[in-house]
Amino acid sequence: MKYIIKEKGSVYCNGNVWQKLQELLDDLNPTKIFILTDENTSKYCLKHVLQHINFNNPPLQLTVPAGEHYKTIETCLKLWEDLSEKGADRSSLLISLGGGMITDLGGFVASTFKRGISFINIPTSMLAMVDASIGGKNGVDLGVLKNQVGVINNAHSVIIDTHFLKTLPSNELTSGYAEMLKHGLIYSKDYWESLKSFDVENVPATEEAIWKSIQIKNEIVTVDPTEQNERKALNFGHTLGHAIESYCLEHNEKTTLLHGEAIAIGMILTCYISKELLQFPLLDCKEVSSVILKHFPKVEFSNEEINAIIELLKYDKKNKNGNIYFVLLNAFGSIKTNCIVRNELIKEAFDFYKTF
Amino acid sequence: MKYIIKEKGSVYCNGNVWQKLQELLDDLNPTKIFILTDENTSKYCLKHVLQHINFNNPPLQLTVPAGEHYKTIETCLKLWEDLSEKGADRSSLLISLGGGMITDLGGFVASTFKRGISFINIPTSMLAMVDASIGGKNGVDLGVLKNQVGVINNAHSVIIDTHFLKTLPSNELTSGYAEMLKHGLIYSKDYWESLKSFDVENVPATEEAIWKSIQIKNEIVTVDPTEQNERKALNFGHTLGHAIESYCLEHNEKTTLLHGEAIAIGMILTCYISKELLQFPLLDCKEVSSVILKHFPKVEFSNEEINAIIELLKYDKKNKNGNIYFVLLNAFGSIKTNCIVRNELIKEAFDFYKTF
Repeated sequence: MKYIIKEKGSVYCNGNVWQKLQELLDDLNPTKIFILTDENTSKYCLKHVLQHINFNNPPLQLTVPAGEHYKTIETCLKLWEDLSEKGADRSSLLISLGGGMITDLGGFVASTFKRGISFINIPTSMLAMVDASIGGKNGVDLGVLKNQVGVINNAHSVIIDTHFLKTLPSNELTSGYAEMLKHGLIYSKDYWESLKSFDVENVPATEEAIWKSIQIKNEIVTVDPTEQNERKALNFGHTLGHAIESYCLEHNEKTTLLHGEAIAIGMILTCYISKELLQFPLLDCKEVSSVILKHFPKVEFSNEEINAIIELLKYDKKNKNGNIYFVLLNAFGSIKTNCIVRNELIKEAFDFYKTF
Repeated sequence: MKYIIKEKGSVYCNGNVWQKLQELLDDLNPTKIFILTDENTSKYCLKHVLQHINFNNPPLQLTVPAGEHYKTIETCLKLWEDLSEKGADRSSLLISLGGGMITDLGGFVASTFKRGISFINIPTSMLAMVDASIGGKNGVDLGVLKNQVGVINNAHSVIIDTHFLKTLPSNELTSGYAEMLKHGLIYSKDYWESLKSFDVENVPATEEAIWKSIQIKNEIVTVDPTEQNERKALNFGHTLGHAIESYCLEHNEKTTLLHGEAIAIGMILTCYISKELLQFPLLDCKEVSSVILKHFPKVEFSNEEINAIIELLKYDKKNKNGNIYFVLLNAFGSIKTNCIVRNELIKEAFDFYKTF
């Protein structure tokens, strides 16, 4: 087992994590344990937890429909009411078992129920393992606006068992891979290089790569938990990525993109902008694009759609005074925050993306 | 001006508070300022603020209907959407101008919008001045269950101008008086004694009494912000008081009680229980009851209603493992937390209340 012990938000990864969780539960001794799943993790992941943990009382299951569409306040309302009706009190525990949608949702519901109960994240998707479940950010969407409502509050612990990756379809795997690539881009050329040959079938290498991402993310969020400075780096590719994700979610004729698929596009666009505004080398820009496009689908955007996506940028959470701030790259592992980008340059970046 | 400076949650009271607020706003330099009011404070209190503060840009007003009925997630949803549409960003500021309903609601909306923006409380009711606006608790009701959803997060500052008390009807004044009496009961016999001759027409004495309550509350919440121990004292009278308030809110044939009116009944009942289970003197119990009933309406409860109120106790936020925990009094200024009370004794307490 690999682990990072923190006052709040400890991470335990692979090896005997279930024995560790058993110890944590015995220590915490919650009055009741609730397990939040979506329909998929209820079917494919819950059994694995129940096989490994000896619960004093059967845990109470809360299930929501799968998919980002349900990461809403309405779903929270239902969960708060369920918790009330099923007798949750301030010493109850919520375990979120699922991908980023479930850990984001569960973290917010727990952080606000009776002004906060403890929660444990058990991420089941690669994306949630390397990103969503780490660092305390939680929340729900407001219409198409991603994570507009939420708080920053760490889980009691995060339990990572890469066994769950076997339950995922392959596009869900590459979705997490996008955030790992981001960690390489913003933090470590070596890590980026090692990811180029990433093969999820190679289990030990995958576990190693996931652990490296967790360490990078943990290091950044520990220095700057409330995103005043360093943590902004983690938004690389997300300003445009979120807008693309929102746009596709909003327009039924567009295929809904997974978070990582949208971020992948956002990263290519932002590398191009970095090349134009900073010193990010054209060669690296091309390499990033070709590595990404080897794994992620290319999406066509009309000029009209690009304008609509740029329009959505005004809701980005990093905005200040109506200005949209980008995180750009000087070079691999060297970022610059609070960069203002002209709309024309964003359109140029889409043109660049089209050339591949 | 009297003041308490804290890292977060500083309180400024009377005197030149508006000059202080002007300095705070100039320092903070928020990208946009939103002022949340209800229909009443929009009409009777907003002008006073606008007269005293020189805003660089006109503040944007958010107004909700008055009354506890609107302290809901649905109202939050509307406010989050309003903030989004009106271009609020993470450096925007929300000023909550109103009674406890508005400061509770505004604090929660601000604490969760884009994972938290700054907010300033300007309480306009006595209740909000001495209690709701101090100590960082915020939240909304879930159906009839009071404050089931919320977080603990301090306001940037709290600005108290007792001038606003002139805008209140007299029952709203006595509602705040209930929390002041509670502060006397749990903390200081002297303060209790001084409150017996409380006359809101005597402005300097009222200001002094309010300031004393703020100091008591601040001292308690500073020692124990997350209510692990000492802060539980502030729940004195609230376990039954909240259930009574919820019951009356839920039943249209019952007159809706103001929070303080319900707490006043809760305190009489809890003094009786304290007499039975601890050493709280019968004489003090009678004195508390007669002082309270001089200021607060007596409400009739049928046996059926009492049973329904006891049933509602199971949703109390202090409950653990299905047990309902009361805060009781050993004597004036000496409390005992985590007391379990039989339902029969609660019924007896209602019988005692009936005798007056």
